[in-house]
Amino acid sequence: MSTVTAPLLKRPGKEWPGHSFIVSEPLRLDCGIDFGPFTIAYQTYGRLNAERSNAVLICHALSGDQYVAEPHPITGAAGWWTTLVGPGGVLDTDRYFLICANVLGGCMGTTGPKEVNPATGEPWALNFPVITIRDMVRAQKLLIEHLGIEKLFCVMGGSMGAMQVLQWASSYPESVVAAVPIAGSARHSAQNIAFHEVGRQAIIADPDWCGGRYLSLGHNPARGLAVARMAAHITYLSEAALHRKFGRNLQDRNAVTYGFDADFQVESYLRHQGSTFVDRFDANSYLYITRAMDYFDLAAEHGGSLPAAFPGTQPRFCIISFTSDWLFPTSESRALVHALNAVAANVSFVEIETDKGHDAFLLHEPELFATLRGFLAGCAEHRGLTRFWG
Amino acid sequence: MSTVTAPLLKRPGKEWPGHSFIVSEPLRLDCGIDFGPFTIAYQTYGRLNAERSNAVLICHALSGDQYVAEPHPITGAAGWWTTLVGPGGVLDTDRYFLICANVLGGCMGTTGPKEVNPATGEPWALNFPVITIRDMVRAQKLLIEHLGIEKLFCVMGGSMGAMQVLQWASSYPESVVAAVPIAGSARHSAQNIAFHEVGRQAIIADPDWCGGRYLSLGHNPARGLAVARMAAHITYLSEAALHRKFGRNLQDRNAVTYGFDADFQVESYLRHQGSTFVDRFDANSYLYITRAMDYFDLAAEHGGSLPAAFPGTQPRFCIISFTSDWLFPTSESRALVHALNAVAANVSFVEIETDKGHDAFLLHEPELFATLRGFLAGCAEHRGLTRFWG
Repeated sequence: MSTVTAPLLKRPGKEWPGHSFIVSEPLRLDCGIDFGPFTIAYQTYGRLNAERSNAVLICHALSGDQYVAEPHPITGAAGWWTTLVGPGGVLDTDRYFLICANVLGGCMGTTGPKEVNPATGEPWALNFPVITIRDMVRAQKLLIEHLGIEKLFCVMGGSMGAMQVLQWASSYPESVVAAVPIAGSARHSAQNIAFHEVGRQAIIADPDWCGGRYLSLGHNPARGLAVARMAAHITYLSEAALHRKFGRNLQDRNAVTYGFDADFQVESYLRHQGSTFVDRFDANSYLYITRAMDYFDLAAEHGGSLPAAFPGTQPRFCIISFTSDWLFPTSESRALVHALNAVAANVSFVEIETDKGHDAFLLHEPELFATLRGFLAGCAEHRGLTRFWG
Repeated sequence: MSTVTAPLLKRPGKEWPGHSFIVSEPLRLDCGIDFGPFTIAYQTYGRLNAERSNAVLICHALSGDQYVAEPHPITGAAGWWTTLVGPGGVLDTDRYFLICANVLGGCMGTTGPKEVNPATGEPWALNFPVITIRDMVRAQKLLIEHLGIEKLFCVMGGSMGAMQVLQWASSYPESVVAAVPIAGSARHSAQNIAFHEVGRQAIIADPDWCGGRYLSLGHNPARGLAVARMAAHITYLSEAALHRKFGRNLQDRNAVTYGFDADFQVESYLRHQGSTFVDRFDANSYLYITRAMDYFDLAAEHGGSLPAAFPGTQPRFCIISFTSDWLFPTSESRALVHALNAVAANVSFVEIETDKGHDAFLLHEPELFATLRGFLAGCAEHRGLTRFWG
């Protein structure tokens, strides 16, 4: 029984490249705790204009972070939305001021369960308060105010990022011009909770998790976290994409080996996904962030009525789903559209035909790019933003 | 860190209620090993008629066993196909002689990795040969011959049982009058291999798995096996069924607890599925049987041509799928129908509308019952079987 110590965990409290903002006043969380002081780690791209009207907040997904458009400081991999961000890109850094913050509870610089609890001198571990999507957004709002931005031109994100977008539009409608939830939902489904619970149980079942105190005890539940990631990763793809990419192709062999090695390419791929994830992600963060997603239910916050989550809504919405996304299927986006129609909101809805599954929002998907480009241009015109550029 | 010892594992080599047949001559397996002697544990219901023409072989699924229509000897739960089997039932025990054998590699009496290897005096563990669906069927063929049955009236099964049905029809077409593969496929898909690999990695990641030697060392990888079962169990249901049964309902509480307890009913249900499974199933058997399913590819056995798997086919087929089954979707059954049409086989195909997902074959599904009843009646008439009853 070997204990794997991941690079991430060799560096508790390490300062990652980028900005950080210390929230000194305690923040009242949904669980009732007043939490703070805490740190928000964030990245920016482009420049804020004089009117402070060109800011775009990008919200990352469960396993994402603030390194949207630059090499990841641990893995060296390209930023997760380099497809969108850059000069002349859909999120044009010559025009917009892009902000992305690591979520509260995360593990890339924002305070989360792996950071040290000043009261004990040890990592928070399970003493970290359980946070919600609304708590994440409350923290982001403090950051935006700190940056002197009263109104965001756009809030955009996929998957858990879409949940944050919707929470922004619901909690702070006066602070959002355009809201773009991609491959999202107004509430986490029973099936999605079930998959998250499998991942959490895989982590908790790992003896190296040590009741959550693995950092203090010098362990790392890498095997459990890898299994959790493997299970989740299947849900990010589609059956068609898996068939197209791997089918039943064998991995570096001409015949099955009649054993338990990774005979099939798809097995090898999944193992790789699991083993690389543990190098950059904290197991307790995985517990906390999946829990935040499970708890997300915008209608429940408003007496069971989803339209009531968007009273007197001001933002313009662009809701995007993917045909082969079975984790956040189009039906979830349609439910959102119906609720927004019920409050006479300004809503565009596009279902994009693709076989790439949920992860399509991270991939080269020309129809996604064209949709975003057109929607943002329309919002900029509506907002009169063009005259502030260049 | 506690070690859970499951009831199953307290009784290695225990004789379970029912029949057993010892195969004394070695069986040549697909992996090239001549394996034997070995035991096949099986159950029967009803009586074989004088002409030995009323035998129905029932093939069980991954987590099933031979206790089709009687309480399970470990859990006491009702047999897994009591919905179909009994006097006057679809599988009428006043008419048919029903046989179900625990598969080779299983853990309910048929020789598998938890039985003792006579060469070492210890459980086989990973020294057990990797078996295939075809090997399981070869063993069943020996049992059928032992029972003096030359031709089975019907071979029927769901999921992995359907794979065995198809293998029977391909390997021994002259020995099968009617073949009923339910919720099956002629090959395991990339996505299904991926889910199996997650389950295997969950088991292997459990330190109590001990490189497979847990029985000899007095351990039991119950936590890993439970996680594997939880992940698999989600795939047996549909998103709609999970939503209908559980939705976001809370478990014995009025509000979320802001913790990692099973706040949601779906979490509690999944944990229960995991924890009860380990009482009756052997972790190494889970590895071997999932591997056999992964390796299944009837076309590959015949130069890549699925029609070539059914040359001069004699059996009458009734192929059944369920609309909400995303593990073995209707498209897989359609591919089978097309292949059988290409060799002019006698094929009925029914896609049953249900929201119950893959597990529909185990549940109360009136259209399934009516379909089976009608098909079997037609086959019996064709076979002139009616005059032998009563």
